Amino acid sequence: MSGPVRGTPHVSSKAAVLDVIRAAGTISRVGLINATGLTGATISTAVRKLLDEGLVAETGHAESTGGKRRVLLQLNPTSRFALGVHLDHSGITYVLTDLAGGVVARTTKPGAGTREPAEVVARMAADTATLIASVGVDHDRVLGIGLVSPGPLGARTSTAIRPPAMRRWAGYPVDQELAGAAGLPVVVDNDATAAALGEHWSRGMGSASTSAALYMGTGIGAGLVIGGITYRGTSGNAGEIGHVCLDVDGPECWCGARGCVEVLAGPEAVVAAARADRELAERIGLVGGRSGSADGLSGGVPSATGDRLPSSPAADFAAVSRAARRGDPQALALLERSARYIAVAARSLANLMDVEFVVLTGPSFAIAGSVYLPVVREELARSFFARGAHPVDVRLSHAAATAPAIGAAAMVLQSELVPLHATQRLPENLAEPELVPGR
Amino acid sequence: MSGPVRGTPHVSSKAAVLDVIRAAGTISRVGLINATGLTGATISTAVRKLLDEGLVAETGHAESTGGKRRVLLQLNPTSRFALGVHLDHSGITYVLTDLAGGVVARTTKPGAGTREPAEVVARMAADTATLIASVGVDHDRVLGIGLVSPGPLGARTSTAIRPPAMRRWAGYPVDQELAGAAGLPVVVDNDATAAALGEHWSRGMGSASTSAALYMGTGIGAGLVIGGITYRGTSGNAGEIGHVCLDVDGPECWCGARGCVEVLAGPEAVVAAARADRELAERIGLVGGRSGSADGLSGGVPSATGDRLPSSPAADFAAVSRAARRGDPQALALLERSARYIAVAARSLANLMDVEFVVLTGPSFAIAGSVYLPVVREELARSFFARGAHPVDVRLSHAAATAPAIGAAAMVLQSELVPLHATQRLPENLAEPELVPGR
Repeated sequence: MSGPVRGTPHVSSKAAVLDVIRAAGTISRVGLINATGLTGATISTAVRKLLDEGLVAETGHAESTGGKRRVLLQLNPTSRFALGVHLDHSGITYVLTDLAGGVVARTTKPGAGTREPAEVVARMAADTATLIASVGVDHDRVLGIGLVSPGPLGARTSTAIRPPAMRRWAGYPVDQELAGAAGLPVVVDNDATAAALGEHWSRGMGSASTSAALYMGTGIGAGLVIGGITYRGTSGNAGEIGHVCLDVDGPECWCGARGCVEVLAGPEAVVAAARADRELAERIGLVGGRSGSADGLSGGVPSATGDRLPSSPAADFAAVSRAARRGDPQALALLERSARYIAVAARSLANLMDVEFVVLTGPSFAIAGSVYLPVVREELARSFFARGAHPVDVRLSHAAATAPAIGAAAMVLQSELVPLHATQRLPENLAEPELVPGR
Repeated sequence: MSGPVRGTPHVSSKAAVLDVIRAAGTISRVGLINATGLTGATISTAVRKLLDEGLVAETGHAESTGGKRRVLLQLNPTSRFALGVHLDHSGITYVLTDLAGGVVARTTKPGAGTREPAEVVARMAADTATLIASVGVDHDRVLGIGLVSPGPLGARTSTAIRPPAMRRWAGYPVDQELAGAAGLPVVVDNDATAAALGEHWSRGMGSASTSAALYMGTGIGAGLVIGGITYRGTSGNAGEIGHVCLDVDGPECWCGARGCVEVLAGPEAVVAAARADRELAERIGLVGGRSGSADGLSGGVPSATGDRLPSSPAADFAAVSRAARRGDPQALALLERSARYIAVAARSLANLMDVEFVVLTGPSFAIAGSVYLPVVREELARSFFARGAHPVDVRLSHAAATAPAIGAAAMVLQSELVPLHATQRLPENLAEPELVPGR
């Protein structure tokens, strides 16, 4: 941009028009004029470009309203694709989606474990190529890769990944390396943020609301979507609900603070409590290290590689969850205690952000969500601050295990659909309240 | 708006142009084209309207860059005014600001106390008229009244006010009544949200950042500003940091939850602890009821009215604060304990929203902020989750007592300056991360 003030760059009306078409399903050029506020000439030009590029197709006519019949436009979903990659210590989930966000292929592979980042990146590049080939999609139609992993993100996204279980990744320019190896543009973000976007795309949440996706994998995070747009914060680290304090004098957390939700109630805390109950631990097979890789959560690189693997909290948490589902009262009590902390943290988040919708997502909620859902729901019904104004709708995700990868792909699609400084999507709840006219 | 999809209404380019001129200070028409992305013809029309209405004035020429010399435009600050009213149990603060947000008149009057809302509204209408007349401003140049008070806000803003100390206001259509009595448009919001906006306007915070104003009056709240725009949440109740939980088994709060910051650390909790220390209470004059109205905090209607007034926590908190400033170790310890809780809650907020800037504001921080500032600052420096990415800048407001009223006036100005569905101000941290191109 040019000009002496901090302002707005020229807008891509093409991207704005494309996003309105996506949201509308089908729409006429006149409808686009009404919906965007752009001139007829601008709409004409943008639509011509979109038709030429094959992103949009004409699809019949609207009912006549007296004048000329209006040609309807719709997205051409198979004109472009995006890859979503959810990289975690314990597993890597890949999805390939079409331009409308529909999943056309998916696969899950062993996680980063303690392997060298360069080795994992090479594997990811190969796995994405295989996935694209498996469904016969032309490589040129793939817009890019969305790569998401647990936070915190560094000041520069190119040195983004450094969760505690993946220390080797600190300072590693994963976006540049993967872009080079895969020959595709790469965008990096936090997995909980991506999960929120994935839930948003999967569900078609109303764009006016503030939604939170509570994400529980090995850690706990939240993704925040305001008016259909992911809220990322100053440095892309928004939504760290795992590091909301619930006990100022509580146990120390790896983040450096005390009494964080994650250290009190995260899967590792649940597993530690289960191990401390010797009888329970023996009953559910926790004693003596790892408990296997059931529920697709454990993953990790094969022990044949010679790596000394840490025990897998994901697999152990799955074992506790299975026991709770079987009706083991001690296992159930541990999960309910965890759920109570998470519910209180969800209330704090809801009180701070006046949230309308909460979805529980991520691999650990995929397994144990049925225990957590009623506890979170009841806490918010009983003591959400603004309950007099509106309820908070709490639900369990239908795609808890794949939401981060779907959201990662959606991040790439949004970069095509929504211009970077989008003009037409100021969320309603960022707008000022309406004036009541004086008499 | 019309059209078949939920989209964007036609944009007021006049309002958009006015806001860019305000932000720029001085700017040419070419600069406006560059900054807004609007066409030359649209800019010409909008500028002509603004000149006709007197909102903008021409002010000399830019340096020649070879071609025609460019006429510079700037806001005409005294062309319009706005009233900000901060209504609280213990005091009502009024400010009159010009179009640039500069305070041209202010006054403070006794608070709502337990009086009938209708009576207080009549008083507010009279006081605003007096304030306007006192500086000789033409009533027609006053755009409207921003009225702010403690939360929670109801589902409809017209039944907005119902903090615990002002129960009579629940269901009372204060916006309509005041608009009718004062003959001016009225917009209602939460005082902490307004304080954040007031701090933003006073300081010229960068519009890309997420800022939080921690507000402490008799209660504790926070106002959130994302990219220069107040974040209000689903129902205008965002920022309730006073109802973040710091102890899941803590004491019950009036909001219905347990262990809230407000019940553990708010001014009333500090005063209760001071009263419980009999020696301290006697030393600082708390025993036997109210402690006077020093520091402008107490207010309240004169006892001559015959009302039976509740004791004033604001005045009592001021007494504890004065004692702490005099070096009373018990009083200081009570404030430091409160500060520690508030600091931990500020960390939770910062971790959830990835906040860049925190300002302590509101009447109680105006009095005791020097005790709270270092505690909050140190907590965030030591244990903010994303401290590796960026620090959180924590400051004490220079206008802690008047920020809510200034922000209330700014809300009115924004409704003139920024169209309701502003197009040109999507905050940067709501935008998607940039793609790193593939090779």
